[in-house]
Amino acid sequence: MIVVMRKDSSKEQLEGVRERIEGHGLQAQVSEGVERTVVGVLGQTFVELKDELGLMEGVLEVVLISKPYKLSSREFKPEDTVVRVGDVLVGNHELTVMAGPCAVEDEEQVVLTARAVKAAGATILRGGAFKPRSSPYSFRGTGVHGLQLLAKARVDTGLPVITEVMTPEDVGMVAQYADALQIGTRNAQNFNLLDAVGKANKPVLLKRGFSSTYEEWLLAAEYILSGGNSQVILCERGIRTFETGTRFTMDLSAIPVIQDLSHLPVIADPSHSTGRANLVPPMTLAAVAAGAHGVIIDVHPNPAVAKCDGAQALTFEVFDGLMSQVHAVAQAMGKVPAAAGG
Amino acid sequence: MIVVMRKDSSKEQLEGVRERIEGHGLQAQVSEGVERTVVGVLGQTFVELKDELGLMEGVLEVVLISKPYKLSSREFKPEDTVVRVGDVLVGNHELTVMAGPCAVEDEEQVVLTARAVKAAGATILRGGAFKPRSSPYSFRGTGVHGLQLLAKARVDTGLPVITEVMTPEDVGMVAQYADALQIGTRNAQNFNLLDAVGKANKPVLLKRGFSSTYEEWLLAAEYILSGGNSQVILCERGIRTFETGTRFTMDLSAIPVIQDLSHLPVIADPSHSTGRANLVPPMTLAAVAAGAHGVIIDVHPNPAVAKCDGAQALTFEVFDGLMSQVHAVAQAMGKVPAAAGG
Amino acid sequence: MIVVMRKDSSKEQLEGVRERIEGHGLQAQVSEGVERTVVGVLGQTFVELKDELGLMEGVLEVVLISKPYKLSSREFKPEDTVVRVGDVLVGNHELTVMAGPCAVEDEEQVVLTARAVKAAGATILRGGAFKPRSSPYSFRGTGVHGLQLLAKARVDTGLPVITEVMTPEDVGMVAQYADALQIGTRNAQNFNLLDAVGKANKPVLLKRGFSSTYEEWLLAAEYILSGGNSQVILCERGIRTFETGTRFTMDLSAIPVIQDLSHLPVIADPSHSTGRANLVPPMTLAAVAAGAHGVIIDVHPNPAVAKCDGAQALTFEVFDGLMSQVHAVAQAMGKVPAAAGG
Amino acid sequence: MIVVMRKDSSKEQLEGVRERIEGHGLQAQVSEGVERTVVGVLGQTFVELKDELGLMEGVLEVVLISKPYKLSSREFKPEDTVVRVGDVLVGNHELTVMAGPCAVEDEEQVVLTARAVKAAGATILRGGAFKPRSSPYSFRGTGVHGLQLLAKARVDTGLPVITEVMTPEDVGMVAQYADALQIGTRNAQNFNLLDAVGKANKPVLLKRGFSSTYEEWLLAAEYILSGGNSQVILCERGIRTFETGTRFTMDLSAIPVIQDLSHLPVIADPSHSTGRANLVPPMTLAAVAAGAHGVIIDVHPNPAVAKCDGAQALTFEVFDGLMSQVHAVAQAMGKVPAAAGG
Repeated sequence: MIVVMRKDSSKEQLEGVRERIEGHGLQAQVSEGVERTVVGVLGQTFVELKDELGLMEGVLEVVLISKPYKLSSREFKPEDTVVRVGDVLVGNHELTVMAGPCAVEDEEQVVLTARAVKAAGATILRGGAFKPRSSPYSFRGTGVHGLQLLAKARVDTGLPVITEVMTPEDVGMVAQYADALQIGTRNAQNFNLLDAVGKANKPVLLKRGFSSTYEEWLLAAEYILSGGNSQVILCERGIRTFETGTRFTMDLSAIPVIQDLSHLPVIADPSHSTGRANLVPPMTLAAVAAGAHGVIIDVHPNPAVAKCDGAQALTFEVFDGLMSQVHAVAQAMGKVPAAAGG
Repeated sequence: MIVVMRKDSSKEQLEGVRERIEGHGLQAQVSEGVERTVVGVLGQTFVELKDELGLMEGVLEVVLISKPYKLSSREFKPEDTVVRVGDVLVGNHELTVMAGPCAVEDEEQVVLTARAVKAAGATILRGGAFKPRSSPYSFRGTGVHGLQLLAKARVDTGLPVITEVMTPEDVGMVAQYADALQIGTRNAQNFNLLDAVGKANKPVLLKRGFSSTYEEWLLAAEYILSGGNSQVILCERGIRTFETGTRFTMDLSAIPVIQDLSHLPVIADPSHSTGRANLVPPMTLAAVAAGAHGVIIDVHPNPAVAKCDGAQALTFEVFDGLMSQVHAVAQAMGKVPAAAGG
Repeated sequence: MIVVMRKDSSKEQLEGVRERIEGHGLQAQVSEGVERTVVGVLGQTFVELKDELGLMEGVLEVVLISKPYKLSSREFKPEDTVVRVGDVLVGNHELTVMAGPCAVEDEEQVVLTARAVKAAGATILRGGAFKPRSSPYSFRGTGVHGLQLLAKARVDTGLPVITEVMTPEDVGMVAQYADALQIGTRNAQNFNLLDAVGKANKPVLLKRGFSSTYEEWLLAAEYILSGGNSQVILCERGIRTFETGTRFTMDLSAIPVIQDLSHLPVIADPSHSTGRANLVPPMTLAAVAAGAHGVIIDVHPNPAVAKCDGAQALTFEVFDGLMSQVHAVAQAMGKVPAAAGG
Repeated sequence: MIVVMRKDSSKEQLEGVRERIEGHGLQAQVSEGVERTVVGVLGQTFVELKDELGLMEGVLEVVLISKPYKLSSREFKPEDTVVRVGDVLVGNHELTVMAGPCAVEDEEQVVLTARAVKAAGATILRGGAFKPRSSPYSFRGTGVHGLQLLAKARVDTGLPVITEVMTPEDVGMVAQYADALQIGTRNAQNFNLLDAVGKANKPVLLKRGFSSTYEEWLLAAEYILSGGNSQVILCERGIRTFETGTRFTMDLSAIPVIQDLSHLPVIADPSHSTGRANLVPPMTLAAVAAGAHGVIIDVHPNPAVAKCDGAQALTFEVFDGLMSQVHAVAQAMGKVPAAAGG
């Protein structure tokens, strides 16, 4: 932590800052520059100290040097974390493809989709039973029945299942059906929910809040890791910007940035990022080329009648064609696409 | 709902769109313009139809005409809603001042603050017992004990109390202590929580999500209203933009815009918007001049040692001075500052 | 400037950084903290050094402490700058109202508007002759003829005139007609134009770029000041954010922030910020309450047929009513509204 | 154009709207829906009509259906435009690589770099002689001398040269030296400059304004096309968002979106998007996989001493390694990397 003094600050103010720092058992190291005097704070600082010093007379600003997240940082754990979802490993040299319907509607829809995405090369089935929707009047999911249908699709295809949990009290129940728990973008700072999945015995797919900074995203992961659950996959899913030509702006730079800052695997969701089916193939390929550990894609037997986000779902046929291209780009990148279970 | 056809769309494609619309029991009205053909959809449309038509061959885009929120719209209810918090009315011709500590720390802190803000003209006490924090390592509030301290401060001063609830299962418990329930910005799209307070028998202060559009904000209110709770106060508290010189960017235009779109009262939170105590007075006055029904302000006996957001808290003295200016501007605006409860 | 070393950096890397700093004739002060080692750079640093050090092995990041602008900073010049436009002073204890048509159309329009705004209390006439328009097919102004009409309106009313200049080669010509030169938001980083008005002998109204940070805005002013022209008025006119319910998001916090960072006067443009006439009155009053030195407002005899931005222009009647309210709020704020010339 | 009436609008107001439309020689087609009445406007509308109708009593909003750009739209010209820069074609099935120093410093620097990037596979040399800089105190380029050095490097290597022009009066001079003119992001809405290059006889590389929407970007291109110059290459270079972990947020979705909306070639600039050399390789590959017609990359013999943006420049060695990967991904995408000039 570094305290920058105002140019017009007095000797007494500088002395006050030094005393305050030392009063907390820390060391103050004063550097008088040509332009400004700065005071380095040495020792085990704490976040609240920033405000405390920032409010003192004569102080211009306080700059944090340490990152506020620890367990999720690569400095803490240099080697990559590999997360196991069912029998599928995420975060190693393979490229993982997760696919399935945005919302589970009925048995035929989910089982047919599971078979189709498996045949095309996906190794994890995604599907929403509890759906967060901006409007209370939209379709909000099939709930427990949807979870049961996902479990049936798992039996049918052998694909492990990932599905969203929206509230702490549902965590145990969803964990009975799912192989991995998804935290949605609108719950990215629902701290009670993060606490709850931090105590669950299942891997967690943590979507980036659509307005979360990299730091806030890793702090959300920190909630889960510090709760005792080290199995976290991060997922870039688009951020909100001024541009309304796509639903969100897919921030693919997040892939290499997060891989630099953290040891956790990071995948990309081109479906929710763009909101438009015709943009999903190019952005899927771009995510692979940017180095993502995997992708998660909306697929539906008949997008036109999907009960949720049909505009972004791929048909079986388009998804199958995309997988061939994904294969080619992954190979060009030196990655092995995870083998289809078949 | 209006369907815009591509310029190169065929007669058959247009016919397909018409049939699909009529298949849902709706009317299709085709207008062939010089530039484009558009199809108006008449009748009781539903949100999913947008995706369905948008995916058809030959369709360029589908434009929604109706707003997706209803109960919260001024078109639905033209006259202003006035919400009662304890004995205090919010949303009428008076200006309501809510003030208190960001986080409740101990009895002395909260009672002294309650007395000071009451003396200066506040009529509602704010204070957080459950604190949403970006980092799991920050102070997360005093919980139930904090609620009990708020209740003591109410007994001591007569001020009704508003405090945050973070998760559905706490709603009943918090409602036992509080006169109004606050939904924080990070829970602005925690739909399970919105459902839960929609069934509570207490007024709700709904903060705008820091990345919520006006429409999403009113849809969040719609969750509460459609759950049966009509006592909602909206609160602008800053949005996230590219500018990092303030913690968030206070969007004061939201005040008149929301008053135009909705009948619900709307107040402003200059403390969390700016994150800096020296900006709170000018932005409080600006909010009043923009026509806010009230303001909510962080006040602390000694901001430098506050356990949460000390950088933005006002001292008793500064708050008292600010209240005089608020009084003057409110009068210039033809508003009556709500009388102190004394 | 402070260099933060990576945790895993070596002694040799630290030594390399120290040598590089000293090689530039600067001093390096090493502080070994519990968490990290940081190196303070003492002496007259230069901006390029940040990249140079940031690219060295073992360096995590380089933090700038000094602000990059000087002449425009309050640290450089503590007392307020007061700018003279014709005979009107901007930046003192008075509130300056500039008003007029967005675009000059014809003599009747501009002279009638000038008379009306003067009668209502404005003391500077605004009007655009050269109009920057997003589309090449929109009305782009009346050019030199428009400048002549503005000059006629000045003769008629005595109001000094402010008008936009869009390109360096026009600066001399516009300066012949205008009392102050306006730099529009889309030219906020047109550095050749900033250089050109920096050499002009007229005050400059510098609008904030709609995506400029406070720092970039003050650096744009720095171009003008360092060119030799100290007569700069800053103007907040809305920034681009995710919210599309208003044309831009008016960032009123900019008023007190800039007044803290800089000695230059700062005014607000509620017309271009909001883009909607019904939002102009509340946001004008909010700007006054936030402490702006003035406001600049679009007024048109008949907004419905305005050739440019009619949706945001006030009628004479609405403007007149607004001026009474401005008067009241300014008085409540302890400001004196600049006297009408009448 | 579609006029949406307020729910509480009267018969008279609807009649007024109809008359106003017909008064302009257009047709009004009224549709009375269950929820709202809308009026379609048929005929050759004009942009100003939106404001005019939007201001009428009883009107809720006016929705534009036609896009405001024409010449740059794919509807206007369905087949791809291929732009010729020197002898290099941009916009066909080949992938074009432009590379070189951000700023031209001296002969050795630019010639060595030109040779190195050519050897690695680049076919166009980029280099800045006139540099737009946020601060007036930063290095602002070598000007005409820099142009002469670029011309020498062209003679030496045979690579055509692309360089930035910052102001209208320099267009003719820069065009004497350059094979293509670059418009920088800060001049993306410098309309006088767009007009000037629209009359130049050289291809133009038009960078997206860092806060330009897709529509504004295409309208900027429209300025150039409507001036008579059809040789425009669009370049995505990152947009400004709330995320500060990268310099800008690279919006790769822009690639497929623009290819859908426009016939103009679109390339990507990973160097200025990210601002960090370690992010350039993954984002270059991502741009290729997203379908970009080319990339433009900063390369410098010794980034640590670069006079401009050294933090984002690649060394010769890293650039060479990247080109092998680009080759592999381009081939996986079915693209042919443009042959080095050999």
